[in-house]
Formats: sequence, structure tokens, C-alpha cells
Amino acid sequence: MLLIKNVDVLPMNSNEEIIKNTNIYIDRSNIKHIGEIREDFEITRVVDGKNKLAMPGLVNGHTHIGMSLLRNFADDLPLQDWLTKKIWPTEANLTGEDVYWGSLLSMVEMIESGTTAFCDMYFFMEEVAKGLEKSGMRGVLTRGLIEDKDNPNTKLNETRDMFNNWNGKANGRIKVMVAPHAPYTCSPEFLIKIMELAGDLNTGIHIHLSETKKEVEDSFNIYGKSPIKHVYDLGLLDFHTIAAHCVHVDDDDIEMLYEKNVYPVNNPGSNLKLASGFAPVDKMLKKGIKVALGTDGSSSNNNLNMFEEINLAAIVNKSVNLDATSVPAYKAIEMATVNGAEALDLGGEIGSLEEGKKADLILIDLDKPHLYPRHNLISALAYGVQASDVDTVIVDGNILMEKRIVKTLDVEKIKYMANKHAKSLINR
Amino acid sequence: MLLIKNVDVLPMNSNEEIIKNTNIYIDRSNIKHIGEIREDFEITRVVDGKNKLAMPGLVNGHTHIGMSLLRNFADDLPLQDWLTKKIWPTEANLTGEDVYWGSLLSMVEMIESGTTAFCDMYFFMEEVAKGLEKSGMRGVLTRGLIEDKDNPNTKLNETRDMFNNWNGKANGRIKVMVAPHAPYTCSPEFLIKIMELAGDLNTGIHIHLSETKKEVEDSFNIYGKSPIKHVYDLGLLDFHTIAAHCVHVDDDDIEMLYEKNVYPVNNPGSNLKLASGFAPVDKMLKKGIKVALGTDGSSSNNNLNMFEEINLAAIVNKSVNLDATSVPAYKAIEMATVNGAEALDLGGEIGSLEEGKKADLILIDLDKPHLYPRHNLISALAYGVQASDVDTVIVDGNILMEKRIVKTLDVEKIKYMANKHAKSLINR
Repeated sequence: MLLIKNVDVLPMNSNEEIIKNTNIYIDRSNIKHIGEIREDFEITRVVDGKNKLAMPGLVNGHTHIGMSLLRNFADDLPLQDWLTKKIWPTEANLTGEDVYWGSLLSMVEMIESGTTAFCDMYFFMEEVAKGLEKSGMRGVLTRGLIEDKDNPNTKLNETRDMFNNWNGKANGRIKVMVAPHAPYTCSPEFLIKIMELAGDLNTGIHIHLSETKKEVEDSFNIYGKSPIKHVYDLGLLDFHTIAAHCVHVDDDDIEMLYEKNVYPVNNPGSNLKLASGFAPVDKMLKKGIKVALGTDGSSSNNNLNMFEEINLAAIVNKSVNLDATSVPAYKAIEMATVNGAEALDLGGEIGSLEEGKKADLILIDLDKPHLYPRHNLISALAYGVQASDVDTVIVDGNILMEKRIVKTLDVEKIKYMANKHAKSLINR
Repeated sequence: MLLIKNVDVLPMNSNEEIIKNTNIYIDRSNIKHIGEIREDFEITRVVDGKNKLAMPGLVNGHTHIGMSLLRNFADDLPLQDWLTKKIWPTEANLTGEDVYWGSLLSMVEMIESGTTAFCDMYFFMEEVAKGLEKSGMRGVLTRGLIEDKDNPNTKLNETRDMFNNWNGKANGRIKVMVAPHAPYTCSPEFLIKIMELAGDLNTGIHIHLSETKKEVEDSFNIYGKSPIKHVYDLGLLDFHTIAAHCVHVDDDDIEMLYEKNVYPVNNPGSNLKLASGFAPVDKMLKKGIKVALGTDGSSSNNNLNMFEEINLAAIVNKSVNLDATSVPAYKAIEMATVNGAEALDLGGEIGSLEEGKKADLILIDLDKPHLYPRHNLISALAYGVQASDVDTVIVDGNILMEKRIVKTLDVEKIKYMANKHAKSLINR
């Protein structure tokens, strides 16, 4: 068993308590015991938790990790120009090998910033799966489906193959879902085919919904209703649904999200940067909707730092609502842990530190000048902590990073290869 | 001379150019030469700039560094409750020694995150000056003046003493200005006395202006005009003025700020967190006003990370204006360098890397996973970089931090002492 001793623990199970100076026992993939020293357990490895805080690993609820190759490539542009003039034309030249190295670069970055699980939507997803298996991370992998009327079944078949080849693999660390890109890139007929596939595979759906004002206006023009009502009427929300963005949602939309137990993923950094606007996060949370948090791709963020997103969720909503009690610190951390876990349909396994759950956790080094004094560690985590304060990362009981050294991946090679592929990509 | 060799340089002098693979020569306090190798210079020290980017040190235009002792002490509260129920009652018990250690803690944090100069408003400012002298940083130190009708001259005399004892000291690294806290804590009569003092000392003014909606409404109720118009009419803006916040400013206010060449300091993190709202930064910049950037105190932020503020300035204004071209990356960096330098009335000395200017600069370690690939380093600095990517900090030609080790201060002792004083303070 792995023992983390003398550690403070923020378990994130229903109250704001921090357990001071305790011990975490990890038996293979799972948390065996949190509490006093147990002389009867056989210990193979001890990690010193002094001056550290253990908390659940962060869950990035929505990202496109292969896009790291296009980080800092096209900035200060409106979403539609950014997508249609810069990103999509370049992505058309992507190869599987590009996506492999870009995804590994993102996994290094996620591990270094305390993310242990993510929900990815991209293509060449088998490459992402190979990288994930190697990295030791946990993830929901989804092949993004933009309708191609000439080859209506190709991408659906890729999704099916992906599911058959990878769902449940890597000791259960990989889950595969079905991912219509958005109602504005998939016709109702194609969405219905996708839903049939999700039903066949008995899995969930990952989709972009109501990201921009224009998208919502277009939906009203074409379908006479909002994107959320549109997919609601199609029955899509009857599946377990991860709905990225939900920025421009009205009270009726929120009612539907609540009724269908949809998991909206708020991506404050990307929404702000692409000038998409402010999602009504506080309102959705107060309604009882379990809003998760994500970074979106690092080409619209431009990093995968979930602590930055926690901070943004906590501070931005306060000024949007002119209410300093909006999205308090603990709620923002919940979005990135408990809610993220449920969004990924992994609520029973991760998201909080409890006996029986998977050992997906991080240790924060509290001995940093910017984390003194220690009046309130929950405030420190939401408002003060930096990604580089993450000292140790454990997923499925395995140490992926220790004392900031990534153990599972060859960081130098990945930086080199990703940079090489990025350069070659934009010159193709 | 100190030579930084083979370094990329972002000089921040009027265009977005990055000079690749060049050399910086520093002669005592000043930049002697940026360019090709000069065999004729006598070199005493060489710093390897490979894989590093040199840029001007960041300027924190508005902060209260002694407040670090109250970091994470009172969060998720509205500004007025936060100030009147938590902060002011606790501050009433502060001692000079508290402020000394709190300020040193903040200076460690600022150095570690790439800030080289700051504008501070607090009390026990002689303690701050002693700390600053030791730390090697540069600063504008201002004794915050909240009117005390029973002792109308005490704080004014403290300001005068502070000026006489410290202005121009520490090899010119200290500048002293006069700091009326705000129009809502100083009567017009007291403001006039303060202006007389500023005139006497021939120095500038540092003041909070139009931070909250309530402050502006109250000003209209009491004076029949906005806080900006109120101080404009008093003649206060005829001085070199650093105006913290300027959140709730209308077009007339902006006109006055422009006419009087006032330097508003935007504090996006603090404004967002305290639910103060969104300053019209884009509008002010487009008008030609040189808006600077600040963190405010770390009790309302909750850190002093200027890279976070750069990121916030760049992304938040895009969504406020629903325009992804608002406050582009370079502009946001300008706010934290060039504009900050001018706000501190140090525009001729710091803010950009040019021959003859003071050697106040930082080296960013570009060899981080989240900074690959390198399509655009200016985007990387605004949207991707983390405080911990700052590798080396030089002020006035002296190395304050190298390879992330602070050289001028005893970091362990400061953490210990600041924590001790913080604990004791809240139990007094």
C-alpha cells in the first residue's frame, strides 16, 4: 500500500471541512483509508505529506487536447473568424501523429497543473487513447462529429471502432462517449443517427451548446427555438449529456438542463477570450444544476490550467452579478472536482477523497510565500494558488508526478516533438 | 558589466517586435547596450539567456502590500462589509512590525512573480521603505490618508516625514507621493490640505477613485457630481495623479482623466472578486489614456501575480465588449510595463528595455510545456505564462532572483515571521 502521511486533506464530500494532519492509505487503484495510522496495513511506499494539502485531482470537463499544436497561433480574433479562417483550415492538415504529440504535450501540462481527468473532443482519438494509456491519466474520449454529407457514416464508424477498441481500457481509465460537435454543424437527421449510436453503445453524449449569441440567434432563425430546446425536442438530452459552454441560455433553457440532469461545462477562460460572453453560472448552480469547469482547447485559452478556471469562475461571476457572494470559493472548487466527476459519469469513482473511491488526487505544496498566512485554505485554493504549487499527482493509485517531476512521460522528447509537429503543420 | 547573452528580448518600446538571440549589457544600474557582442566591454558576470525571454519587469500600479497578513482572511463578502466589518477593525490593531513582515512577504511574492516596481498605499510606510531597501525592489510609497478630524495634521506630518526621510533613497529606488485614501474618506477641506502638501513637496498623488457604484451614487448625492468631477473641480487632477480603479466612470469622467493626463490603475482581479464591476479599459485605452495595471492588496485578490492581471485585462474586456479584439495581448502587457512606469512617474527610467534606461528586467523561462509551441510569444505572455515561469529578476542592475532563488531576502524567515504576525494580529 502507498501511504501519504501527515497530510491535510480537503475531501470535497459535501462540506468545507479540512482534515488536519491525517494519513491516506492507497491500495492499488483505490483509497483504502483516510485517518489514523494503521499498523496492520502493509506499506510499500511512503510519501511525506507535511506542509501539503491533498485534494481530489482536478477534472477538466471540456477540452480539445490535440489543439495545443495551435496554441498562440491565432489570437485576438472573433470566434467565427478564428474557427473558419485560422483553426479549421489548419486542422484540415492534421495527421494522427500530430494529434499524438499535441495530446501528449497537453497531458504533460495537465499533470503539471493538477488535472487528473479530462473530457476530450477531437479526432484521431485512437492516438489520444494511446497517449492517455501511457500518461496514466483518466479521460472521457470523444470523436468530434461534424456532419460530412458525402460520407455520412465514416465518422460514426470511427466512433464505434473507438468505443470497441478503447472503452474501459487502460485499467478502466478510458471511457468513450459520442460527440456531435454542435447543432449548427450537425443536421437533426445526423443528430438522430448519433443518438442511435449512443443508444447502441449505451454511452453518453458530449456536445457544444449555446456558446455564442450568434449560434442562438441562428438556431431561432432556422428552427424557431434555442439550441437547447432543439436538442431537447430531439431527445438528445435524455442521454447522459456533457454540454460544453451553455453561455447564452435563458430561463427556459436552464429549466430543461435541470429537468434532464445535463452537465453544462463552463469554460470561463475561453469564453472570455473569444468574447463569447458570460454564462449564468451562479443561476445554474443555484437551480441545482451541477455545472462543471473546463479549459476548452489551449488554442483559445491559452493553457490548460484548471486552477486559473477555478479562479475565473469564482471572481468573474461576482462582478457579472454585482454580488460578492456569487460562486464562493468552495463552489468553484466543487465545479472542478465533484461536478466534473459527475459530468464525466465518473461520480461514483472520482471527484472526492473517500474510502473506496479511486485514488485520483493531488498534493498542493502549501509552503509558498503566496500561500501564507493560512487563514483559510479553501480561499487560498480558489483565489491564490498557482498551477506550479501542485507537487504530486496520483491517478488510479499511480504516481504520475512527484516533487514536480513527471514520472510517466518523457517531457523533453514531448516538448521537442510537439514543437516540431506544430511548425511543420502550419507550413503544410 | 553584467552580460545576459543569447537572449530573446521584448523591449516594449512602441512596437511588437521581439529581438531574437541578442545580448544585453548592464553597467551598474543601467542598460548599456542591447545588440551584438561587444568585445571592448569589461564583463564581470554572465547570465545565460538561452531559451529565455527578457522583458521589462512588471509594474504593479496599485497595491497595499502590508495587507498580505490578511490574505485569505475574509472572502466572498461585499466591499463595504469586507472593509468595515473585517478589514478596518483588524487593521486598527496593526503594528509597524506587522507591516514590516507583511510587506516583506509581499515583496518575496512580487519578486517571484516578476514584479520589479510597485505603488503602495498603506501606513507604517517607513517600515515598508526599510523592507524595500533590503529587497532591492523599486517603489512609490504613499501613506494612505483617511481623514481623522480629531488629529487633522498627524498623518500629513507622517507623510512629510516619510518624504523627507525616504524620497530618492535606496539609490533612487524609492519615490514618495501623497495619498488621500478616497473622496469618501477625505472632506474637500482635507483634500485641499493634502494638495498643498503635494505642492510643497513637489510630488504626485495616489488616490482611490470611483471603485464602486455606491461610491459614485453617494458622490452625486453629497456633491452633485461624480468623484472624478469632484476632485477635478478641486484641482487635484492638476497634480501627477495615480487613480486606482476608475471602474464606474462615464464619458465625462473619461474626458477629464484624458484632459488631466491622469493614470488610472485597473485592478481586474480585485474588482471582479469584490463585485465592483468592469472598468471601461478598452474605451479608456482607445481614448489615449495610459491605463496601468495593479493587483490591489492580496486580501482582495488574493495574490500579487501581475501575469494574472495581464491575462484578466486581456480576456475580461473582450467579453465585456463582446469584441475579441479588445485589449489585445500586447496592449495588456503595455499596461503592466510602459503605462505602469509612466503612472509611477518613472517613464524615463523604467517600463521598457532601452539603452540608458534602468536595468529593471525579468527573464521568462520559455522551456515550459505550456509555452510550446512558440507561434507567438506575445500571446504566450498574455494568455499562457505563469508567475512561476519567471526565472530571473533584475532591478537597478542587481540580481534579486536567479533560477527562481530570491537572493536579497531570507524567504524562510519572512514566511515564518509573516505567518506569526498574521496569527497574532487576528487574535489581538
